[in-house]
Amino acid sequence: MKLEVVTIGTELVLGLTPDTNAADLGRALAAAGAEIVRHVSVPDRPAAIRAAVADALEQTGFVIVTGGLGPTRDDMTKVEVAALFGMPLQLDESVLQSLEARFRRLGRPMPAVNRTQAEVPQGATVLPNPRGTAPGLWLEDRHGRVAVLLPGVPSEMRGLLVEEVLPRVGQRIGDRRVVLSRTVRTTGVPESALAERIGPIEEDIAPLTLAYLPSTEGVDLRVTAWSMPEGEADRRLAACLAILRERAGEHCYGEDGADLAAVVLERLRGQRLAVGESCTGGLVAARITAIPGASTVFVGGVVAYANGVKTDLLDVPAATLEAHGAVSEEAVRAMAEGVQRRFNAGATIAVTGIAGPGGGTPEKPVGTVWLAARVGATMRTVKRVFPGERAEIRARAAQAALDLLRRLLTTSS
Amino acid sequence: MKLEVVTIGTELVLGLTPDTNAADLGRALAAAGAEIVRHVSVPDRPAAIRAAVADALEQTGFVIVTGGLGPTRDDMTKVEVAALFGMPLQLDESVLQSLEARFRRLGRPMPAVNRTQAEVPQGATVLPNPRGTAPGLWLEDRHGRVAVLLPGVPSEMRGLLVEEVLPRVGQRIGDRRVVLSRTVRTTGVPESALAERIGPIEEDIAPLTLAYLPSTEGVDLRVTAWSMPEGEADRRLAACLAILRERAGEHCYGEDGADLAAVVLERLRGQRLAVGESCTGGLVAARITAIPGASTVFVGGVVAYANGVKTDLLDVPAATLEAHGAVSEEAVRAMAEGVQRRFNAGATIAVTGIAGPGGGTPEKPVGTVWLAARVGATMRTVKRVFPGERAEIRARAAQAALDLLRRLLTTSS
Repeated sequence: MKLEVVTIGTELVLGLTPDTNAADLGRALAAAGAEIVRHVSVPDRPAAIRAAVADALEQTGFVIVTGGLGPTRDDMTKVEVAALFGMPLQLDESVLQSLEARFRRLGRPMPAVNRTQAEVPQGATVLPNPRGTAPGLWLEDRHGRVAVLLPGVPSEMRGLLVEEVLPRVGQRIGDRRVVLSRTVRTTGVPESALAERIGPIEEDIAPLTLAYLPSTEGVDLRVTAWSMPEGEADRRLAACLAILRERAGEHCYGEDGADLAAVVLERLRGQRLAVGESCTGGLVAARITAIPGASTVFVGGVVAYANGVKTDLLDVPAATLEAHGAVSEEAVRAMAEGVQRRFNAGATIAVTGIAGPGGGTPEKPVGTVWLAARVGATMRTVKRVFPGERAEIRARAAQAALDLLRRLLTTSS
Repeated sequence: MKLEVVTIGTELVLGLTPDTNAADLGRALAAAGAEIVRHVSVPDRPAAIRAAVADALEQTGFVIVTGGLGPTRDDMTKVEVAALFGMPLQLDESVLQSLEARFRRLGRPMPAVNRTQAEVPQGATVLPNPRGTAPGLWLEDRHGRVAVLLPGVPSEMRGLLVEEVLPRVGQRIGDRRVVLSRTVRTTGVPESALAERIGPIEEDIAPLTLAYLPSTEGVDLRVTAWSMPEGEADRRLAACLAILRERAGEHCYGEDGADLAAVVLERLRGQRLAVGESCTGGLVAARITAIPGASTVFVGGVVAYANGVKTDLLDVPAATLEAHGAVSEEAVRAMAEGVQRRFNAGATIAVTGIAGPGGGTPEKPVGTVWLAARVGATMRTVKRVFPGERAEIRARAAQAALDLLRRLLTTSS
């Protein structure tokens, strides 16, 4: 089953409000077996609304529309779509009564403008909305073409989607063909180098499709099964993930929603972890402590931003900083050792670098970062030069630091 | 000038990745005086991409397309749009050279697949992208119809938008009626209490509109001027912001993109700052060090996750932890004092609390956080109970900790 999503709101098109409804609908409908072939967003303008809905119906015969069902003048979705379906609006007594009951419960008189929300296109199915004043509407013409109108308030939209829309969509999808995605997460390898490792796999995995998604955390490999019986999709995806994991090798740290920090915590198997960071300024610790239960292995860290802190709290010799600079292999080694001693930790991470925008030199440009990971008496260090601006360099450095420890834990276990 | 935005990516349509590019383009183009009449999002499929771009060109003659410019097989935007414009792809030597130079700088050989990124539709203008491997492309046919192709990586898209696209769009626009928004940022006050302070201001500020936008950072007041000559919009917005700032009073910490951490750093006027954190686990330090130039006042911090670290590195008496617990006014006071002494800092922040999901008790439920700020010998502490889940509690606690120091610096200066 194919469908289109139309989200209505000038604020959405102008980027003033994030369009969370489109993403929520996308995930829920794909998981229910519907294929969303397009998402369109238009301003609160009658002609634009009518054109977008008419076009979507022509493409797929099924459109879900959010927004523009409120009581005010800029809410015109119902009028436009009703006209498109040739269904005149008429007052629905039961909707009116539930509206009046709602206002009684809130202890307020019902404003006259809300009365228009009880007007329903003749022949449409009302989808009751206990969370707000605008009911959902299911319009269907004699050719079986459907427009589902949902309110734009995200909590109301989600409630109606789950309680009223997905069950009906499920009924229409006889054979439950689903759209499902799964992801292999990699880090520490550039997209192009990863693509060379994976090779021209596209034909082997068809009809599944593969997408490379680079971010500051690494490169995700997303595989999607399009419109397939659920069991078959699960089977094909699992087989494909196994191949991708094998080809990605040591660069792969997990699947789907896996977080590198959680993977590291698990691999530590109870060993105490502590961190010392300079340019990441707390990001590594924040990544680790974002994981529920981190306190069972993570004991703490030092953000050693000033050089004096590196010497005082992490015992980095002032002579080392003078001779090699704070961004050097010698400094990062001393930091990792100092953290291990101070926190009495089995494993440590240390980071020192130049996040910019200032502080770069020809020998050590902005983006230069030294990383160290230590487990027991085994230490591994690496120098990286990260592209991007301050925030990106910091995020990449934190991820690379966690990854260095992950790799060390993998080889030493 | 009317235009359409097309964002390409299966992950966008499926709601797996938030479509931040659409929102960023919407805001920037509206501010530049362009009218976005529609935003369309389609999966990585050749036919869908071509149809969406062709349709957008037919509607407005001007389309901005993001995504699908990477080196891998699922990146097919350039091929499809070039075919639509009847422009064959050819290798551009200068793009190839800058690609090769980029890989040299990163100290890596250029993989063969990246060579395709140097192929440019014949007659298109190359928009150089110093942040990544995919340049932007500006295609224009003899009827003056334009397609601008930008990479999907948000930081690269934004860079090209600001540096290459907006200046060219500005040249094409005659009368410059703009849609502009400005924001007053508040924190430490609930939305409803803020609304009572602001009062029924809507008619006074018309035709500007006001929106309350709550988040973990506080409540933003967004004012929007809709389709107005630029000078008038600027004037009206500035006047409205002055009123809102005055009514918000001490809860207001800045305007527009202001970051509370940057505000705090500025108010410190050179005094050394250090932090001690437990439940925020590095987030406060990370917020501070995210600000360029933070190193001029921020010296460092301790993430004291385990109680032993609170005693060893921050000199919190073990007796205090035993008598009152780690989440107590006594503990947070001792942390703030310990940090001040250890880092020889003029100002400090300390945070200890229960981020959940575990660790709550009837007396100290999940979300309970004690905060302290200290400047010289003046200390202020506060207990808060934050709603939400772990990530939200941590984010709210970090913001509240920064805000406590801001308020202390304001009254003591």
